[in-house]
Amino acid sequence: MGVSSKASLAGTAIFATSNSTSSNMQHIFIHHVFFWLKNTGNTTDRDALVAGLKKLSKASTIKQFHIGKPANTSREVIDSSYAVSWMLVFDNDADQATYQTDPIHLKFIEECSHLWSKVVVYDAVDAG
Amino acid sequence: MGVSSKASLAGTAIFATSNSTSSNMQHIFIHHVFFWLKNTGNTTDRDALVAGLKKLSKASTIKQFHIGKPANTSREVIDSSYAVSWMLVFDNDADQATYQTDPIHLKFIEECSHLWSKVVVYDAVDAG
Repeated sequence: MGVSSKASLAGTAIFATSNSTSSNMQHIFIHHVFFWLKNTGNTTDRDALVAGLKKLSKASTIKQFHIGKPANTSREVIDSSYAVSWMLVFDNDADQATYQTDPIHLKFIEECSHLWSKVVVYDAVDAG
Repeated sequence: MGVSSKASLAGTAIFATSNSTSSNMQHIFIHHVFFWLKNTGNTTDRDALVAGLKKLSKASTIKQFHIGKPANTSREVIDSSYAVSWMLVFDNDADQATYQTDPIHLKFIEECSHLWSKVVVYDAVDAG
């Protein structure tokens, strides 16, 4: 089997293999949300938010998700002041729009919005 | 083939299938960088930065990457003022640290840092 055939097999529907070590995520919509807690540093509130996000992850249009916390890195350009990172991958704009009004999403906001003081969202599509 | 077997086949090394529609990205390090151009709105500079990131994507520790631009969404919480989004997935903290001093990364900074006025970085690991 040639190298190109192997590379092709290593790919998936949305990750086109661009070289031997990394995959280019293409034709996706990234929705990355950062939450700051009302009670900064409160682990009970943080855990409640994470639990809420785990339920929210069942929203049907979500392709992939990551529930994160700040890594142990520190440089001037790094913002590690947030409490929880919520990174979503959708197939396209329409699926992200559907997610916004998904009953599971509305329920999450109803149950968890009292926990945060600030939310910053970055939506990104392929740069082309 | 049972449902659980199918779900298992649909998974990959780092994406554990959590339900029928979405995948839980776990055991990863997300490094998400947002760039603001010195010459805001200059498409030549934007394209040069994107071209630089494509070369940077060859850094060997990068597992997955996405080169993005702001999506066509607009709500109060959405920051769409950035020019380019650079979302990286590493296997772990050590790989991200190695990337910082990778010659390919240092070359990218040398060649492209004149293009941007501001960089904001969010590093996230599994919330657990």
